[in-house]
Amino acid sequence: MRVGILGTGMVGATLGSKLVQIGNEVKMGSRSAANEKAVEWAKKNGAHASFGTFADAAAFGEVVFNCTAGTVSLAALTLAGPNNLRGKVLVDVANPLDFSKGMPPTLSVCNSDSLGEQIQRALPNVRVVKALNTMNCRVMVEPSLVPGEHDVFVCGNDPQAKARVTEILKSFGWRSIIDLGDITAARGTEMVLPIWLRLWSLYQNHDINFRIAR
Amino acid sequence: MRVGILGTGMVGATLGSKLVQIGNEVKMGSRSAANEKAVEWAKKNGAHASFGTFADAAAFGEVVFNCTAGTVSLAALTLAGPNNLRGKVLVDVANPLDFSKGMPPTLSVCNSDSLGEQIQRALPNVRVVKALNTMNCRVMVEPSLVPGEHDVFVCGNDPQAKARVTEILKSFGWRSIIDLGDITAARGTEMVLPIWLRLWSLYQNHDINFRIAR
Repeated sequence: MRVGILGTGMVGATLGSKLVQIGNEVKMGSRSAANEKAVEWAKKNGAHASFGTFADAAAFGEVVFNCTAGTVSLAALTLAGPNNLRGKVLVDVANPLDFSKGMPPTLSVCNSDSLGEQIQRALPNVRVVKALNTMNCRVMVEPSLVPGEHDVFVCGNDPQAKARVTEILKSFGWRSIIDLGDITAARGTEMVLPIWLRLWSLYQNHDINFRIAR
Repeated sequence: MRVGILGTGMVGATLGSKLVQIGNEVKMGSRSAANEKAVEWAKKNGAHASFGTFADAAAFGEVVFNCTAGTVSLAALTLAGPNNLRGKVLVDVANPLDFSKGMPPTLSVCNSDSLGEQIQRALPNVRVVKALNTMNCRVMVEPSLVPGEHDVFVCGNDPQAKARVTEILKSFGWRSIIDLGDITAARGTEMVLPIWLRLWSLYQNHDINFRIAR
């Protein structure tokens, strides 16, 4: 499969590398055609890894991952180009964390709206699936780093898109994938960030995750 | 121990009954001196259960539970009387759920503030501990209803108050009690409500809870 990764940060690099390792062709996109981190990432990940602009990555991917910082995701997706994304599955991994007022960050959107919904409204012809935003990127691609049973959430308006993302999550090693329903459930998954950040600070450990006991 | 319960809803009744059952004297308080539900609750719970106004319950309790609806908690606590609560442990179980715009509810405060913090600011001489607000009241008092390991969170500014609440939680059967730090962590525990409500709707089951896998 051809995958586009929007964003050159740790989340994009980690997801991109995993996707190459399990047999996909991956293009990492950024604001510029040859972002230093994207070039370095592609070099490290071999022949099936490449780089380009947001638009290049969006046009390249059959499935595209939004790994940009949540507060700039809408701007990045505008640069990626709605026509390059039309009809495709966009996995929104971002959280709208606003660090401008210091630590801990607040959410730039929450409660009666979410970043996932904002993206779906901005790109009505794109099949947005919110997923993987409730854990550290190490855990996203290697769930066995966290002992025992724990969960990843998906939500979105298109069942086929969610099924496709579910297959990708399984290929990462996820066994428990909870479908929370339509994209409005992104409010719920984005709003767990404050407690996640507390727990991270408490345990000084990224390798934690939520389990829904029932 | 003498316990005051503020609120006559299902949460107050369930916590009050459990506290009587495990050997405490409990007074349920409400806006009026003889609220119908409080009278009925006291009758059902025997000689160690009584009722009165918010102020009566606050004056009676060595420990007081805020089980009022989150959107009216500050008003109820004003009626309870800061002097009746001075120096005491106030366990804040409430969530600021606003049902006025329909379902699902939004939070009337979140992100850069929380109900727990609002209460602590309004009552600076009271030792507020946020706890038990992340699960259904059946589970609050009977954690074994949910299979396997799962967690209850506490937060607050006074370590001794948290230690006292921890003992009460143990007497309810809780084995895993996570201290998230000061009262600002109430933002985190209140903001899990949207995903909790989604999961409740998905599983059609109140007997669910969060486990932090690590």
